[in-house]
Amino acid sequence: MKIGRQEHRSSALSTSSADVIVVRGKDLCRDLIGKVSFTEYVWFLLCGELPSEAQRRVLDATLVAIAEHGLVPSVQAARMTYAAAPEALQGAVAAGILGCGSVILGAAESAGKMLADVVERSRDSNLERAATEVTRDLRAARKPIPGYGHPLHKGEDPRATRLFAVATEAGLPDTHRKAAKQVEALLPALTGKTLVMNVSAAIPAVLLDAGFPLGALKGVPILARTASLVAHLLEEQTKPIGFVLSHAASVAIDYDGALPDGFVAGKE
Amino acid sequence: MKIGRQEHRSSALSTSSADVIVVRGKDLCRDLIGKVSFTEYVWFLLCGELPSEAQRRVLDATLVAIAEHGLVPSVQAARMTYAAAPEALQGAVAAGILGCGSVILGAAESAGKMLADVVERSRDSNLERAATEVTRDLRAARKPIPGYGHPLHKGEDPRATRLFAVATEAGLPDTHRKAAKQVEALLPALTGKTLVMNVSAAIPAVLLDAGFPLGALKGVPILARTASLVAHLLEEQTKPIGFVLSHAASVAIDYDGALPDGFVAGKE
Amino acid sequence: MKIGRQEHRSSALSTSSADVIVVRGKDLCRDLIGKVSFTEYVWFLLCGELPSEAQRRVLDATLVAIAEHGLVPSVQAARMTYAAAPEALQGAVAAGILGCGSVILGAAESAGKMLADVVERSRDSNLERAATEVTRDLRAARKPIPGYGHPLHKGEDPRATRLFAVATEAGLPDTHRKAAKQVEALLPALTGKTLVMNVSAAIPAVLLDAGFPLGALKGVPILARTASLVAHLLEEQTKPIGFVLSHAASVAIDYDGALPDGFVAGKE
Amino acid sequence: MKIGRQEHRSSALSTSSADVIVVRGKDLCRDLIGKVSFTEYVWFLLCGELPSEAQRRVLDATLVAIAEHGLVPSVQAARMTYAAAPEALQGAVAAGILGCGSVILGAAESAGKMLADVVERSRDSNLERAATEVTRDLRAARKPIPGYGHPLHKGEDPRATRLFAVATEAGLPDTHRKAAKQVEALLPALTGKTLVMNVSAAIPAVLLDAGFPLGALKGVPILARTASLVAHLLEEQTKPIGFVLSHAASVAIDYDGALPDGFVAGKE
Repeated sequence: MKIGRQEHRSSALSTSSADVIVVRGKDLCRDLIGKVSFTEYVWFLLCGELPSEAQRRVLDATLVAIAEHGLVPSVQAARMTYAAAPEALQGAVAAGILGCGSVILGAAESAGKMLADVVERSRDSNLERAATEVTRDLRAARKPIPGYGHPLHKGEDPRATRLFAVATEAGLPDTHRKAAKQVEALLPALTGKTLVMNVSAAIPAVLLDAGFPLGALKGVPILARTASLVAHLLEEQTKPIGFVLSHAASVAIDYDGALPDGFVAGKE
Repeated sequence: MKIGRQEHRSSALSTSSADVIVVRGKDLCRDLIGKVSFTEYVWFLLCGELPSEAQRRVLDATLVAIAEHGLVPSVQAARMTYAAAPEALQGAVAAGILGCGSVILGAAESAGKMLADVVERSRDSNLERAATEVTRDLRAARKPIPGYGHPLHKGEDPRATRLFAVATEAGLPDTHRKAAKQVEALLPALTGKTLVMNVSAAIPAVLLDAGFPLGALKGVPILARTASLVAHLLEEQTKPIGFVLSHAASVAIDYDGALPDGFVAGKE
Repeated sequence: MKIGRQEHRSSALSTSSADVIVVRGKDLCRDLIGKVSFTEYVWFLLCGELPSEAQRRVLDATLVAIAEHGLVPSVQAARMTYAAAPEALQGAVAAGILGCGSVILGAAESAGKMLADVVERSRDSNLERAATEVTRDLRAARKPIPGYGHPLHKGEDPRATRLFAVATEAGLPDTHRKAAKQVEALLPALTGKTLVMNVSAAIPAVLLDAGFPLGALKGVPILARTASLVAHLLEEQTKPIGFVLSHAASVAIDYDGALPDGFVAGKE
Repeated sequence: MKIGRQEHRSSALSTSSADVIVVRGKDLCRDLIGKVSFTEYVWFLLCGELPSEAQRRVLDATLVAIAEHGLVPSVQAARMTYAAAPEALQGAVAAGILGCGSVILGAAESAGKMLADVVERSRDSNLERAATEVTRDLRAARKPIPGYGHPLHKGEDPRATRLFAVATEAGLPDTHRKAAKQVEALLPALTGKTLVMNVSAAIPAVLLDAGFPLGALKGVPILARTASLVAHLLEEQTKPIGFVLSHAASVAIDYDGALPDGFVAGKE
């Protein structure tokens, strides 16, 4: 059954013969393996060209910044899944990746769209006016301002500060970084609260300044977290805590539904 | 409800205060972001120490080698899923990762276990005898010899050849590479077929030679493929083929069940 | 780390002692197992009360209607995943469920929201005016009208027709069914095309008429498709076609990227 | 690229024309929707024939028995995933299903294989001898005896007791139920512990007695839990606890890795 009206019937990523594997026009074995780093290869896969040194530095920095932050919900989901299904490491990784959603790690993408919108609109006016318009539109549509505020890092998100410094050291233009700072400056008046830029606004700011594609922004936290999930699952193999986590969580929640006649609660 | 008898209640990966994020003993923002590459960080997350230059080179090479090989089943699953559910890039990536199983990419792990077993047993005898025992045991248990033979690369898998060269250039010991070659040499007599070493035996051979943990081997193709999946999903955003793939696949399959009276097949 | 400001710390679904498992106030073993059908239990889990006979009939009918429709993309993703990772049936089912998204099966939920909106707005005017407003608003926001048109069933979707008949036989009120018909009547003038109501509009129409919760609508195709996925994976165990599907799909796609000097394409 | 040597190119589950959808030989709209229950349809999809009343009763009973048992790990994984990614209900359901693995719900399948093995071997000897052999073989291979013992229901698993009663009431043969009881009787001598039969042995016992296919056993808990996951995610929409669960779990785990100089732990 044909679904939709897709007109494309081609892909530009890879082809191969018995002897040669081609990736985006290069011979994988002759030109890439052993010659480029994984980070350079990620950029190449996404963009079709190898990155400059500045682009490579910033992509490395963002991947390192967002990979690991302890027992966050997606890590817990992965460790519980692995404890229940140790035959399938890939399933536990997948369960963790499914938690890279709009509320948690997906903010990097929505913040990127917002920053790109601010930069776009600032062309015909100025940055402050553009940022004011964009944030007001978001508030009017009852949408959150993505990438600001953090439950733990309230004074500043040290990863955001560091990523901006790396981008500056690398000599990248600062168009989107300025937009991110402009949005931060407007937030107290707009929301009545001081909300500092967090890593999810800093990542798109520095990557868009480096020319990284907007549509691949969400892939950065997903790729980074995959590394962290594998590390947690390796630890889970020798120091399992998946069921300890679920037990501790379950006792924090009360049952508030009805009870059948004569039911006597057990002690936990 | 308590499940199982897990006795650990700790993790050594990360902790944080409002100002500092600690990863395996280092200050993430001061010591790692902008200072180490993502590949070095992956090794650090898994092993607790930064890699040597030789270790880093080999891990980079394996990640580059296995990331992309065209429209393989897991990529197709991801592109079909994205076409059906574009609101959740993470779901499409997860669908692709779920295909990194025992038959396809998981062979890197089972080949790694086999090679480690050969090396272990060779300590008390010699490599040929150890490899003979291990492969005979697998055959006796009706299990496949993982990491040999390839549907397309029949003469040699050029990625395997290149990975061995990189490991040699990097100056790594060759214990597991020798074991992999020894197994390859035994296969014609054992199976009646020439089966060349493929990338799924070469990856564990070079990584185990570099001191990479056996329990994390499966994470290497999973991490590498995540990058490729993101690249395919970025292409799917502008050149969608998810439903073209499923349509072409569905017309290759006939219905061979019963039909109700009077059913007239439509033209496709 | 505390994320968000969640204030609830309770759940009303289940509790248990060593002797008794309570589900929504009933004793699972005494009151439910062997006494209610799975469909009645599904309704009970979602709504907290057992369904009337009419409600049960309609929920059964929708689950039967949407479970199976051949080698759709989600089934293909599941079968390919199972071929690659036969150690984890749950992973193959999960890959299939991930394709129950906004474009394909999730239309049941968005159509349900649209129909509920039409009914709500018709209270202060009339059905035609309300449906006109709602569909115009969707068009103005460049959103699709969910639940109308089908790539194969162009004359009518026989499942939609049958579900409406079942709901009428069951004696349910027809508020949302009328809204669905009203939307269908407006579409030619609005879109210039005749688009017949498909199963994704019929399911929410009959379920909302039965008092089924709007927030659980998406669960109906997900639950139904899970049954179908298990059936396909059972067939895959004895008549595997996962790699046949992926091969047929891959040959339908050309490589249109660059090629390295001297590359000679292999024959497929 | 061709992978493997799959020789089948057909499926017997479904075909369709513009007017008729065929499922396993029947006209979906004329013969099934509104005429059979979802449980009957599940049996029909899996087996190709509608179930007898006894078969239907037992399948309904097992689905009701295993669907819900409170905040188990897979439910927690799903609720955390939904809190992080509310745009994709299907992703949260998939995360929950990924926890239906060999340790937790998959025991229904491995117990089914064990019981089928006991019954098979008893044909040439007797039930006690067959059960002794099978359980000794499992112990010798250092594998668990699946389906016995429960962390909460130590005296008896009331679901197991009830399922056996339902199967007896339905008039089914008791071949596999006897095998399950025989295994239970041998366990104290074999393991030194009294381990009562739990729901994961009772489900395959009654289903195999009803003629349900062994290869689909794992699908029963997966299908049942899907219903429960949807119910939990519906509750999560109005009484969110996903992040409360993850916070409570995270504070139960200490960091036991190294710390950088001068690190001052924050108060949680």
